[in-house]
Amino acid sequence: MAQGPTIALDAMGGDHGPTVVLAGAELARVRFPEIRYLIFGREDEIRKVLKQYPKLEAASEIIHTDDVVLGSDKPSQALRRSRTSSMGMAIQSVKDGQAQAAVSAGNTGALMAMAKFILRTNEGIDRPALVALLPNMRSESVMLDLGANTECSAENLVQFAVMGAAFARTVLGLNRPKVALLNIGEEELKGTDDLKEAAARLRDTDLPMEFVGFTEGDKIGVGDVDVIVTDGFSGNIALKTAEGTAKLISGLLRRAFLHSLWTKLGYVLARGGLRALRSHLDPNNHNGAVFLGLNGLVVKSHGSANAAGMAAAISLSYDLITDDISRRIAQDLENFRATPAAPTEDA
Amino acid sequence: MAQGPTIALDAMGGDHGPTVVLAGAELARVRFPEIRYLIFGREDEIRKVLKQYPKLEAASEIIHTDDVVLGSDKPSQALRRSRTSSMGMAIQSVKDGQAQAAVSAGNTGALMAMAKFILRTNEGIDRPALVALLPNMRSESVMLDLGANTECSAENLVQFAVMGAAFARTVLGLNRPKVALLNIGEEELKGTDDLKEAAARLRDTDLPMEFVGFTEGDKIGVGDVDVIVTDGFSGNIALKTAEGTAKLISGLLRRAFLHSLWTKLGYVLARGGLRALRSHLDPNNHNGAVFLGLNGLVVKSHGSANAAGMAAAISLSYDLITDDISRRIAQDLENFRATPAAPTEDA
Repeated sequence: MAQGPTIALDAMGGDHGPTVVLAGAELARVRFPEIRYLIFGREDEIRKVLKQYPKLEAASEIIHTDDVVLGSDKPSQALRRSRTSSMGMAIQSVKDGQAQAAVSAGNTGALMAMAKFILRTNEGIDRPALVALLPNMRSESVMLDLGANTECSAENLVQFAVMGAAFARTVLGLNRPKVALLNIGEEELKGTDDLKEAAARLRDTDLPMEFVGFTEGDKIGVGDVDVIVTDGFSGNIALKTAEGTAKLISGLLRRAFLHSLWTKLGYVLARGGLRALRSHLDPNNHNGAVFLGLNGLVVKSHGSANAAGMAAAISLSYDLITDDISRRIAQDLENFRATPAAPTEDA
Repeated sequence: MAQGPTIALDAMGGDHGPTVVLAGAELARVRFPEIRYLIFGREDEIRKVLKQYPKLEAASEIIHTDDVVLGSDKPSQALRRSRTSSMGMAIQSVKDGQAQAAVSAGNTGALMAMAKFILRTNEGIDRPALVALLPNMRSESVMLDLGANTECSAENLVQFAVMGAAFARTVLGLNRPKVALLNIGEEELKGTDDLKEAAARLRDTDLPMEFVGFTEGDKIGVGDVDVIVTDGFSGNIALKTAEGTAKLISGLLRRAFLHSLWTKLGYVLARGGLRALRSHLDPNNHNGAVFLGLNGLVVKSHGSANAAGMAAAISLSYDLITDDISRRIAQDLENFRATPAAPTEDA
């Protein structure tokens, strides 16, 4: 077997710590037996779980540390433990070239701050962005920024578009993804000046993407756009509102099926179809948010993800490593700079 | 019967024009027979529909105009027709005191621009906001601004909170609504400076509301907050994302029930429960977005609303007129100014 990539795991992150992290790695191992793992955290706890998976154990090295970043830790507190915490050490191993990606289900703010501090941004990127996949009517779309940057300039948005398109080419396997800016109307006169300027600059690019202009919140689920670009404030609100609405409807559905004996029987009969629906919307199947724009890959798994979710985040890392996403982004950005700049329109 | 309020209807707005507008008014008439109507638009078209509803006809006066604002008209184009279009004339009748509220299902941007131009903002209000009701797990919550203002200052957000609380007291019948600012985290250090400043100022108010701090997109559907305050950009994106997610899930549900003969039978059995779910989420049952903060009431009905939706928008207008929402807001704002200002914290 060819020597595969090495992935660093923060074993202590997430709601369930090593139990779920390692069960997920075992699932990923079945699919990608060539991956090697560096596992950071409390050795005794890790060893106990790892014993259940002898093949995974054989592909893994444990690096012990007692220091764990908690969900309640502020990013500034976590930053001071960049060299001692399981989260920080996992990222550090990417910097040192021992691993090609770090995966953590821990505190998002802390992970973001440490990743940026340890790995620094790519040349040509001013700010990293948090990107993830969202389910839509057809399959999935890519959305960024999901919360790394509260306020974004036109230049930031343009860079996010380039990074998001490269991500879609790798993860969705598209040659020429359709890219749109999230706005409150599709007309050119809507939105902030930064949005208008970003649109004007993206309109004349010669990159492997199709810029389709503005899109709106109600189109995210339709799937006619592959990459949705927005600032981290709006992106975070859109993502969480979608999650909340899905939860609201599934709560109401449960209530609907409990309504009477007939509806309960109806549920039993419809179960097969509903299972496919649940699987399509299950966040575990879309798990893994990536910090794009850094000198190294860091993937955030949802804190409440199960083993299948952790496996999805590891598989995503594998795809991004194999496809050399960082090089793709660097190349696209260089080509973007080489495109003659479009005149900026002020509305 | 006591002389009821007069409501101005733009008969030409929305996807179906007079047919749905007047069918909606007829439904509202059954509930509130004391309302009188001024109906603006093409007399022959209106007369033809109105003939079907003799009691409504007896309570109505038609004011003819040929000029209709189209969905494709820009706000600036529409503004020039403030005195000639059915939409503009309906708002004008509120200004002149002939009607106490205007209801239109037409072009939102045009309606917003004309309403602001004709009615001007209330004293003490810098910018009007678009407010509406959203379904949640318990019942409904109030959200604003939904798109009137792309960028908002701390002062704007504070005024929106005061207006939204007054709206919730009237429409949801609450004495002390829970008010929160929409943010990307619940911690005090998250978000923009304007959000932090608005929070600091709302924390020390002595108004009939309970300011509970920040809330997030995934909490909108939970219903533990009665009033969600945000800028028009984020509010519009959250509202439309919620709509889009609901549409995505109902599309997937349809697919799930069509999966096999068993699932189809399951649907038939569960129909009773599912009908209650559909009714709880049906936008027609929450129809009517209100421009708060103007010297006069303007209510926007959804362009695709059916007769029940139009009736909901008219009923909402009736409640707001009866409860004198404008006076409530003015009073609350005055009390707010009288509260000693809290020191502004910079983070």
